Amino acid sequence: MSVDPVLSRIDSTLDDSLERLKDFLRIPSISTDPAYAEACDRAADWLVSDLQSMGIEAEKRPTSGHPMVVGHADGPGPHLLFYGHYDVQPVDPLDLWVNDPFDPQIEDTPKGRVIRGRGTSDDKGQLMTFVEACRAWIAEHGTLPCKITFFFEGEEESGSPSLIPFLEDNADDLKADVALICDTTLYDSRVPAITTMLRGMLKEEITITGPGRDLHSGMYGGPAINPIRVLARIIASLHDDQGRITVPGFYDGVPEIPDEIRAQWDGLGFDHTAFLGGVGLSVPAGEAGRSALEMIWARPTCEVNGIGGGYQGAGFKTVLPAQAHAKISFRLVGDQDPHAIDQSFRQMVQDMLPADCDVTFNSDGAAPASVMSIDNPMFETARQALSDEWPDEAAFIGSGGSIPVAGHFQTLLGMESMLIGFGKDDDQIHSPNEKYDIESFHRGTRSWARILQAISAT
Amino acid sequence: MSVDPVLSRIDSTLDDSLERLKDFLRIPSISTDPAYAEACDRAADWLVSDLQSMGIEAEKRPTSGHPMVVGHADGPGPHLLFYGHYDVQPVDPLDLWVNDPFDPQIEDTPKGRVIRGRGTSDDKGQLMTFVEACRAWIAEHGTLPCKITFFFEGEEESGSPSLIPFLEDNADDLKADVALICDTTLYDSRVPAITTMLRGMLKEEITITGPGRDLHSGMYGGPAINPIRVLARIIASLHDDQGRITVPGFYDGVPEIPDEIRAQWDGLGFDHTAFLGGVGLSVPAGEAGRSALEMIWARPTCEVNGIGGGYQGAGFKTVLPAQAHAKISFRLVGDQDPHAIDQSFRQMVQDMLPADCDVTFNSDGAAPASVMSIDNPMFETARQALSDEWPDEAAFIGSGGSIPVAGHFQTLLGMESMLIGFGKDDDQIHSPNEKYDIESFHRGTRSWARILQAISAT
Repeated sequence: MSVDPVLSRIDSTLDDSLERLKDFLRIPSISTDPAYAEACDRAADWLVSDLQSMGIEAEKRPTSGHPMVVGHADGPGPHLLFYGHYDVQPVDPLDLWVNDPFDPQIEDTPKGRVIRGRGTSDDKGQLMTFVEACRAWIAEHGTLPCKITFFFEGEEESGSPSLIPFLEDNADDLKADVALICDTTLYDSRVPAITTMLRGMLKEEITITGPGRDLHSGMYGGPAINPIRVLARIIASLHDDQGRITVPGFYDGVPEIPDEIRAQWDGLGFDHTAFLGGVGLSVPAGEAGRSALEMIWARPTCEVNGIGGGYQGAGFKTVLPAQAHAKISFRLVGDQDPHAIDQSFRQMVQDMLPADCDVTFNSDGAAPASVMSIDNPMFETARQALSDEWPDEAAFIGSGGSIPVAGHFQTLLGMESMLIGFGKDDDQIHSPNEKYDIESFHRGTRSWARILQAISAT
Repeated sequence: MSVDPVLSRIDSTLDDSLERLKDFLRIPSISTDPAYAEACDRAADWLVSDLQSMGIEAEKRPTSGHPMVVGHADGPGPHLLFYGHYDVQPVDPLDLWVNDPFDPQIEDTPKGRVIRGRGTSDDKGQLMTFVEACRAWIAEHGTLPCKITFFFEGEEESGSPSLIPFLEDNADDLKADVALICDTTLYDSRVPAITTMLRGMLKEEITITGPGRDLHSGMYGGPAINPIRVLARIIASLHDDQGRITVPGFYDGVPEIPDEIRAQWDGLGFDHTAFLGGVGLSVPAGEAGRSALEMIWARPTCEVNGIGGGYQGAGFKTVLPAQAHAKISFRLVGDQDPHAIDQSFRQMVQDMLPADCDVTFNSDGAAPASVMSIDNPMFETARQALSDEWPDEAAFIGSGGSIPVAGHFQTLLGMESMLIGFGKDDDQIHSPNEKYDIESFHRGTRSWARILQAISAT
């Protein structure tokens, strides 16, 4: 089966594809807010109908949260599972949007045409690149070139509480030769990418308590312990002078990146000056002796995402507060064990507590890093197909972020994931005025058409 | 003139005195809130009328903020200036009050009778102990035993912005032999006190900025600097392992307490276990080798009164914040120079900033410590008079808090202050359910009657 007529059809029907996407985007499927539960349900129904309209067997599957959508389409080639999510982030602050987040508009911008609205890039627009590629294949050839299972989640933006039980309960129904996930970015506008390394995450909120109530710093300052100072000492001790993390055992399981990957990354010519300059910085902080790209893609981190304690309003109150808290997260790589690191971190904090102080920990989840095994030749096949579509050759890259579903596919279904996405760093996902480049949508759809053809031929 | 009939009159008219105090307390003279400006004005008028009702020449004096009240009464003895303030703290959170804060009630409690309401202890109730003593003197003897200038402020709880210019403009009108200030506490319920050492204060809010906007810690964590971590390092470095403050030159001008004062303080038998136990603590933190009492009364401190940065809401956002801020205050003693310390502190912070970080400082005022010269025999005279009224002998004590007016009287009017107050540590000033012991009010009034008599005889 030739891909050329499929590509031609994708080109000629782009406007129809965009109209369908706009229709999908108009459903305000915010998963974190119970007020939008009906909208989430409606988005799942929309996907079921759309798959069915292409002759694909599909249904909505209930969970204790928002429903999953599962579809099956037969085909001659290998069996692929495609994953995307139909839920979106909240839209606050609404007044910063230039248009209604759920009334998507196509705009011409200095950097090209975009579609703007909540979910355009994360993840409805990306999800639909795959669906539109399948539609074009079926329209031209009456069938898909591979056997495909479609799997759409509605809780990705709210921590995926139903995902693991659903995967466990439906393992036979979902297991495929490899998973395709469209929820990542291009390397840049010329270089497409398959993300093969995702950092894991460990999140802990710690609260240090000292006095039984807020005290007057005049009456008690000196002999009374100050939880903010205790917390500051703990945070300051988490890194050494070389930017390395001091939690005992933290670097167990952190691999050096293989030479061939390092060579490929070096070839990308990453410009850390431009990268940091874009956010008002000039000098790479972090671990001494590591490049900025390596730090983001392949090194673990410890960051303080929030801190609070005492009086934070206008002016001054000379309070000596009863407690102080911080949200601390670790990005993990390689074989770092989130559980072991969590225990070690908690012990380290406990050991630093002075008399009269207590600490409580509030864990917000932990997931190990995902490193895809790219020995499967389908990875190289897909990389070649991507390279055929875009100006420059595709790269295997890392990602600083965490996409837990890829790890769950590995551990629960024994299945590697190819993370191929067409988002860009300036898409403003999770922020006001989210957009998706029309080029991303168009070339993304064409990319999937090529990838399916290439994989079917392996 | 004998004090005995004055004391008898104070005893027999206590109920009338309390009714007058309740009338005064019903005026919601919250100085920080512009909505209560009229009430502040009304409280000043109330005081003018009350002084005039006793035959004392008194008037309200305008300022750019709330008015001052000044009154003059002639008498045979030395010239005394009495200072108090008629403004009160805000009452939030209102729902924690057991009664309307401006509908004062007399209550029997396990620890004795109290009057409960905003301003009962800080400072209307304390202020009125002096006024009632004067009223009884005039009623019995037709005159006061000393020449007295009354000086009431209405901005003490909002930083006294008009105080210094008013003292400068009215120095001749306000200068006396010594000032009496009733805005402090007893040492304990048996031991009255004259506070002769007040700590000074230096307040700085610092804001550390790094990236130009909040960043995603997955995309930027590692190479991007985190202002919370920078701030934590700065705070952690402000004290050494012995609890001493590390700001260069900080201890310049910090005296060791004289042996005779130390002996007197040792004689007080201060129970730091009970003091700290009352607020859920057990071990004195702070400078190694210093007693808790010395730390509060005679040693300088550095405290963090508030800290904030990044995401502080429920759950987690893996943000790498653009800025973090802290409110830092220093309590000063002896001859420490607030200006020099401020400069040194700012330089120390600047020196700790890594590349790509900036700091802004927002000063919230500075005042040196006040150490009263107790060579004037009136101090010992007053101490004896206090000792006659209370179960145990009166003490010269220090105070951890700051009462800037005493310093201004020294520097602008060349006048020492005798800080004599009858508040107790459990009065909950600045908090809901403020109260003042009826015993404090009654014995306080009697104390002033005795002090005036004793001073007039010197």
